[in-house]
Order: sequence, then C-alpha cells, then structure tokens
Amino acid sequence: MSAPIDVLEGQLPEGSVVIDPATSEGYRHDSASFCAAGTPLAVVRPTTTEQVQTVLRWASAHRVPVVPQGARTGLSGGANAVDGALMVSMVRMNRVVEIDQVDQVAVVEPGVINADLSRAVADVGLFYPPDPSSWEMSTIGGNLATNAGGLCCVKYGVTADFVRGLEVVLADGEVVRVGRRTAKGVAGYDLTRLMVGSEGTLGIITQATLALRPAPEPALTMAAVFDKTADAMTAVARIMASGLRPSMMEFLDRSSIRAVQAYRDMGLPVDAEALLIAQSDRGSLAAADVAAMGAMCEELGAAEVAVAGDAAESAMLTQARRLVNPAVEELGATLVDDVAVPRARLVDLLAGMDRIAADNDVLVVCPGHIGDGNMHPTVVFDRGDAAAAERAQLAFDAIMRLALELGGTITGEHGVGLLKKTWLRRELGERSYALQRSIKSVFDPQGILNPGKVL
Amino acid sequence: MSAPIDVLEGQLPEGSVVIDPATSEGYRHDSASFCAAGTPLAVVRPTTTEQVQTVLRWASAHRVPVVPQGARTGLSGGANAVDGALMVSMVRMNRVVEIDQVDQVAVVEPGVINADLSRAVADVGLFYPPDPSSWEMSTIGGNLATNAGGLCCVKYGVTADFVRGLEVVLADGEVVRVGRRTAKGVAGYDLTRLMVGSEGTLGIITQATLALRPAPEPALTMAAVFDKTADAMTAVARIMASGLRPSMMEFLDRSSIRAVQAYRDMGLPVDAEALLIAQSDRGSLAAADVAAMGAMCEELGAAEVAVAGDAAESAMLTQARRLVNPAVEELGATLVDDVAVPRARLVDLLAGMDRIAADNDVLVVCPGHIGDGNMHPTVVFDRGDAAAAERAQLAFDAIMRLALELGGTITGEHGVGLLKKTWLRRELGERSYALQRSIKSVFDPQGILNPGKVL
Ligand SMILES: Cc1cc2nc3c(=O)[nH]c(=O)nc-3n(C[C@H](O)[C@H](O)[C@H](O)COP(=O)(O)OP(=O)(O)OC[C@H]3O[C@@H](n4cnc5c(N)ncnc54)[C@H](O)[C@@H]3O)c2cc1C
Ligand SMILES: Cc1cc2nc3c(=O)[nH]c(=O)nc-3n(C[C@H](O)[C@H](O)[C@H](O)COP(=O)(O)OP(=O)(O)OC[C@H]3O[C@@H](n4cnc5c(N)ncnc54)[C@H](O)[C@@H]3O)c2cc1C
Repeated sequence: MSAPIDVLEGQLPEGSVVIDPATSEGYRHDSASFCAAGTPLAVVRPTTTEQVQTVLRWASAHRVPVVPQGARTGLSGGANAVDGALMVSMVRMNRVVEIDQVDQVAVVEPGVINADLSRAVADVGLFYPPDPSSWEMSTIGGNLATNAGGLCCVKYGVTADFVRGLEVVLADGEVVRVGRRTAKGVAGYDLTRLMVGSEGTLGIITQATLALRPAPEPALTMAAVFDKTADAMTAVARIMASGLRPSMMEFLDRSSIRAVQAYRDMGLPVDAEALLIAQSDRGSLAAADVAAMGAMCEELGAAEVAVAGDAAESAMLTQARRLVNPAVEELGATLVDDVAVPRARLVDLLAGMDRIAADNDVLVVCPGHIGDGNMHPTVVFDRGDAAAAERAQLAFDAIMRLALELGGTITGEHGVGLLKKTWLRRELGERSYALQRSIKSVFDPQGILNPGKVL
Repeated sequence: MSAPIDVLEGQLPEGSVVIDPATSEGYRHDSASFCAAGTPLAVVRPTTTEQVQTVLRWASAHRVPVVPQGARTGLSGGANAVDGALMVSMVRMNRVVEIDQVDQVAVVEPGVINADLSRAVADVGLFYPPDPSSWEMSTIGGNLATNAGGLCCVKYGVTADFVRGLEVVLADGEVVRVGRRTAKGVAGYDLTRLMVGSEGTLGIITQATLALRPAPEPALTMAAVFDKTADAMTAVARIMASGLRPSMMEFLDRSSIRAVQAYRDMGLPVDAEALLIAQSDRGSLAAADVAAMGAMCEELGAAEVAVAGDAAESAMLTQARRLVNPAVEELGATLVDDVAVPRARLVDLLAGMDRIAADNDVLVVCPGHIGDGNMHPTVVFDRGDAAAAERAQLAFDAIMRLALELGGTITGEHGVGLLKKTWLRRELGERSYALQRSIKSVFDPQGILNPGKVL
C-alpha cells in the first residue's frame, strides 16, 4: 500500500514536501563512508513545531518511516535515507529564539548552524562551547542528536553538558517538553539526556534551551614535537594532572604529520612520532599556562617546543591540526573511526594502530582529541580497489575491537548510526542492549523513527 | 502470603538480614518531615554486588518491595520504609575500589561517605566536587540516586556531571554496567544519566566510576550585606555574568540572617534584607576575584562588604551560611523546600515568599544556592500545633506553585521521593509523566523497587 503523500502535502504550506527524485537524491546521504542509503519517499522541510507534528501524525497513521536530518555532516550514516522514508530536514527551523543574558541561556530551533549560534552569543559576551570541527556546517539539532564533541570539550565538556531542556515531537505527533530552564533540577528521570545522543530514534527535537557561559579570553597555544609517542602520552597525562586546564589538547601521530607536511610545507619534522598542540584560555594566566605546558614537554623529552605569544602565532600552531582533514582526503578514500580509551591506555592504542595498519596492509592516520582519549584513526585506501576497501573495513573493525579490549568505547562523539550498529551490542552487553531496545519501544512503538539506525 | 525471609537469610552471610523490629525501626525514616513511613519486613545489609543480586532475585520471585537506602539524610522521604518492604541498606558496601590518577577517576562502592571519598582523592591531589551540606554523612549511592547538589555546583556542576559509569543490579537480580570509564562516549542511549536521580526506583547502584579533577587552590571569600533584596539579585546577575566564575554563591534572606544572629551573635545586621557570600578558588586570581566581586556589590548599593584575605577569614565569613541549618532547627519544626527558578525571577520568588508567609501565618526562612537560582525556603512551625502544621503544608505547596509559575522546578536537588510526588505530574505534564512511568516499567515490570516513590 502506498502512503497518500498528497494528503500530507495538503496539510502543509506549499513547497514543504518535495517528491522529485532529483531533489531528494541530495538528501540521501550524510558524510559517512560505507553506509547504505535507501530511496526516500519524499523530503519535507517544516518551518514550525506544528508542521513537524503534522508530519509525524501522518507518518504514524500510515506507518511511514521518518528520518530526521540536519546538515548531513554526520559520520555514521545516522541521517541516511531508508527505503520509502520521509526525510524530515530541519534546516529551515533555524531561528535563535532568545538569548537571555541574566540566566545565560539560549533558546534555539534545531536548524540553527552551530557557528551562527556561537557568533550570536559572542556578540553579547557569551560563549556556547561545543565546537565540532564541522561547526560552520552542522546544525544544533544534529549536534544534540549525536551529542557532538569538539576541540574544547577537554575543558568544557560535550554538547550534552550544555543542554537544559528540549521540545520534542514524539513518533505519534504529540509534543513534549523535557528538562528545564533552570541551572539545576531533579524532577523525575532525566529524559533530556536520554534524547541527547539518540540519533533521531526517539523523537524529533524542535527546540532546545542551551546553557551558555561568559566568553573566555582568546586562547594561547603551545605545540611540541616528540620523537617517541610514549613521551608525548606522559606529557598529556602530566598536563592534565597539573590543574592548568587546557582548553584544547590535540594530537597528530606520525602519519598525520606526514600527511599534513605533504599537503602543505609547514616545516613539520616528518620523522617525529607525535605532535601535541595545547591551548589555555585562562586570560591573564594563559601565557604562563602555555609556557608551563611547554616546559613540561621539554622536560619529558620533546624534540622541539613552540609557545605562541599572541593570537596570530597561536593560529599558526593550530593550523597543522586543522589541515589534517583536507590533507588526509587527498590521500584517498577514508573510513574515519572515533574510538575513545582511558588516557592510561593511549600508548597501547597507538601501538595497536601500527600493528593493525601492518596486518591489513592499509594506511592508518591517527589524529585525535588526546586530552579526552578520543582518537580518530582514519583508514585510508584506494577508492577504486575493492580488495583494499575490504581490508580497510577489516582494519576499521580491528580498531574498535582494540578500543573495547583497552576498556574504551567504539564511539567517543560521532555516534553509532549505521556504521557501528553491529558493534553497539558488543559494547553494551545483552541486557543493557535489551534495555535500550525497550526504551526505544516506549518512545516509538511502531518503530517509524529512523528505523534500522543505532539499535 | 508471607514471604519466606528465612530462605533469603540462608542465602546470605550470617547477620546480613535483620528482622528484629527494634533494629529495623531505625531504618524506617530518612530526614524529611511530613512523609509517611511503613513497617518494613526486614533490613538487609549486603557487602557485595552478588549479595545484592541474591536479594533482588529473592524479592522478585516473591514480589517483595525493596527500598534501597544510604545514610538516610534524604529530605524527600525517598528512603522511607513501605509496608512489608525489605530495606536494603548499602552502607556496608563502602570501599573506595580504585583511584586512578592518570585518568582522574575513582571507582567506589555506593556506601562510601561523600567526605571519605573527598578526603581520599584530596590525598593524591585530586578533587571530587559534589559537596552536599550533608557530605560528612551522606553516601555516594544516595548522592547518585538523588543527583545531589551542594555549594560548589555553581562552578563545578552537580553529582550527575561527575558520573562516568555505574554498575546496577536490576529488579530481577541481573547486573548491568552502564556508561563507561572514558571521558567521552556516545554508544547508545545514556542509561547512566537515567539512573542518576532515579531515587532507587530503577535499580540498585552497586558501583560507580566517578570523574575527578585536579585539586583547586583554597578558596577566598567575600560577603556583602544589602538593605534591598533586589540590589543583591542584581549583584548576583552581575557577578555571574562577569566571567569571575565564583566557586560558591550563597544567599541568606532577612529571616535567615535573624535566625543565625539569634542563634549566635555574629554581629549580623538584623534589618538587612540580604546577605551574599561568594568565593573564588582560582589560585593566584582569587584575591583579585573576591575584591572585584566586593566592588560590584558596593557599586550596587551594598551596605557593608567584607573581603577575606586568607583561609581563616574566609571560614569566618562562610560560617553564617553554615549556621543557618542549626539556627533554624532551634526555631521549631521545619519543612524544607527546594525550588529552583531562573535567576531573572529570583526577585519575584523572594517577594512571593513574603506573601506566602503572611498569607499562611507562618515563618518562611529562605537561604539558598542563589548562583544557581536554587533556594531552600524553609517553613518553620510549632511542632505541637496541628493547625500550624497544616498551614505549613499549605505554604509549602504555595512555594512550589510559585516556582512553577516563575518557570522553575519543584526540586533543584533534593528529589521527589514521597514529599513532592503529587507535584511531579504537574511539573512534567501528562505525556512526559506517562513516558517516565513507561520507563519505570521497562526497568521494574513488577513494581518492586521503591514502590510509591517519585512516580
Ligand atoms: C569535516 C567534519 C568535521 C567533523 N567534526 C566533528 C567533531 O569535531 N566532533 C563531532 O562530534 N562530530 C564531528 N563531525 C560529525 C558531525 O558534524 C556531527 O555528528 C554533527 O553533530 C552532525 O550534525 P548535522 O546537523 O550535520 O546532523 P546530520 O548529520 O544531518 O544528522 C545526524 C544525526 O542526528 C539526527 N538528527 C538531526 N537533526 C535532528 C533533530 N532535529 N531531531 C532529532 N534527530 C536529529 C539524524 O537523524 C542523524 O541520526 C564532523 C563532520 C565533518 C564532516
Ligand atoms: C543537614 C543536611 C544537609 C543537606 N544538604 C544537601 C545539599 O546541600 N544538597 C543536596 O542535594 N542534598 C542535601 N541534603 C539531602 C541529602 O543529604 C541528599 O539527598 C543525599 O544525596 C542523600 O544521601 P543518603 O546516603 O543519605 O541517601 P538516602 O537518604 O538513604 O537515600 C536517598 C535516595 O536514594 C536512594 N538510594 C540510596 N542509595 C542507593 C543505591 N545504592 N542505589 C539506588 N538507590 C539508592 C534511596 O532509595 C532514596 O530514594 C541534605 C540533608 C541534610 C540532612
């Protein structure tokens, strides 16, 4: 039975529903590799909560699968189409509804681009910390649904840490508000946190109340090159234990350094095993902080240490980190992993990565948010070579297996989506997995919300 | 049908089960007023996770209600006995299993006293921030189950913000691990946060992996007396907006000031409307921070400002806050409320409190964690006077109604328990409440875990 999409069209403003396959083709994929995407029924782009309710009432009545979607920068296939689904693109609900300076909260629609919110609150001296590298493209809704991380989580925490309350349209079209506006609150179970990171499988987020902070001072930067990964890891542990509270703590392994240097000559030492880049944004303390971090690195055997005296020098030092993505893209097709391990096991993770690369005859480039133990081992392979793609997949799986063996997780910030669905059960264990499935059934008894994703 | 408690006794080490009513009497109540407590079947004090599993398998098989219990300092009746229940006191599971300095995590059993953990981690230069005023008595398990707050949440956050993972025994006796040890992780729905604050209704927490931080410097303190509440509130907003990041920001209203001054002569001005006490623990910046906060208060019309130059002076200035509890206890029976409102509505909340006190002919003393908008209006009444007790109850309800009207919550940190059960539904709304009930059923289909509490 085909669903009467024209009925839905009639209930929404003109132009909300797009059935044309050429257009919907553009909504089939997020930014993940190796994830299947089906053929959607149509794309709908609501502009109000009521329209989202209309959409879900219709979808429930006709048991049509629904895929919520932000900017499709996701790296797990979470926003990919499933056959016959209505793609609900939230990008037109992009108003910053309110910025409250006394309570330091922002109320936003889910389609707001992260960078737009960040700039809007910066204009009034406030700060929205979550800063995924995709911040100029990805939406707050997508950030919430994936519980996105970023560079400054090492000091400030992830998206979830800045969510006070949400408005959510449930599978049957009813709207609920969960959470609160106040700084604290313990009335009932924490449904807000349950929604955050649920990747579009429990409801569609239509509004969010986010916590802000006073804007910090501009950060200063320190970079250190190490001949030995183990020394760099000792430096990470020392800096994290020091109380200096770095606002960024990033890492490039040897392959990342080489990729960047090949992409653009930055004078990086291609035989070094590790490059650490750390920042402090503690205002008048920042200069002393980065000097102290630099001194620790030197003491622990860094071959070279650079400490930036101002914002311009800082930007130069952080550029190497920013160039990893484009540099690696040049090398071939990529499969980006996202494991996190306890900091004490980072040396083992990195050693394991070398082994996995050798065993599977692939290149593994390993940059990461080292301060949080959250690494992005990226398997690089030849797009046209089917055997290489298969080896890449094996290496990718081996990385997750290793992370679990080291007491870590298969995903630190990108989510499960389609990409890691078969691995989730292993990480959670049977009973925990079963509890999650039951929770899914509470919110979405018909299973129409982003079916086949996560669980 | 009476449950074969002797069967359970036989499955546990000698002395684990106490049936003697004189002893179990001591386990019937937490520290809340006005909350009913039933007659328990027995008290059991397990020492291992396996014993907790045995208890819950037995309870499930015989459909015996189970009430998890920590130190019974709870202020909502959450740990009170229900008729025929097995009281599961977790206080003997009190080992600090591990303190990991590299990853800055502690693994603890739930019976560990908050202060014991805080001291153990301080010994190695680390810091466990959550500091409910009951910290010398309350257990980590109770803190987790209530998502306890405290004085330093204004800077560091509440208990939930420091929980990485939990071991939980489910109603049927199976054990699950939720969450993780790593700093970040987004594998599946956040069951950890769901357990935190669930007040013993979803499972029994048997182990927790907690995040620690490097120890901060000792805090310095500033105190300011205001003739007008509104000026004090403006000062709070200004300080919070300033980026100074106070590590404490407490408030005493006129009745609190008077109660403390009556209890001990501290030279407090009994005609002042407000006393603000704020701290900074930013090391070398702290002295400048408290001076700056003091200057802001002066500029905004404070009648008196004191800035402490060292730890001893700081202790003196914070003593007024610490004496509120004992001072108010002297005045009569108390009913402690725990509402939170947006900071912008604090003036309205405090004005409303005066009205409520007058309308109901009761004394309302209102200290609070003002930086977070979380206040503890405490209704004081004559223990022996039934009519007064009834008026106190009316005033207590009026306070919650007001908080909801002002966009706040009925409970900022103490939880729902029995005390606020009828109010929870109002705050959540019907559908959100129904979702919570369904989640309860997923975890506890027979309804044996802390029945009649929260929902
Ligand atoms: C260059 C690049 C850099 C990146 N850097 C980072 C990084 O540093 N940290 C990080 O965490 N991630 C990073 N990512 C991944 C990605 O940007 C994040 O996952 C982001 O949060 C996705 O947002 P989006 O708007 O693109 O959502 P989409 O990709 O469109 O959707 C992501 C998921 O959210 C769901 N969803 C979207 N909107 C809603 C809604 N309103 N209600 C319910 N569900 C919804 C979708 O169904 C899907 O499951 C990066 C990606 C790229 C391409
Ligand atoms: C003087 C005083 C000051 C206080 N100050 C504060 C404050 O500043 N901030 C604040 O938030 N609270 C405060 N409280 C309230 C109280 O101390 C907290 O709620 C505390 O977290 C309770 O811990 P407990 O060990 O006493 O738990 P209990 O009172 O024994 O139990 C509390 C709840 O937790 C459940 N529970 C206990 N252990 C477990 C477990 N292992 N697994 C599952 N469920 C469990 C119980 O069933 C109950 O619902 C104060 C109380 C007093 C008496």
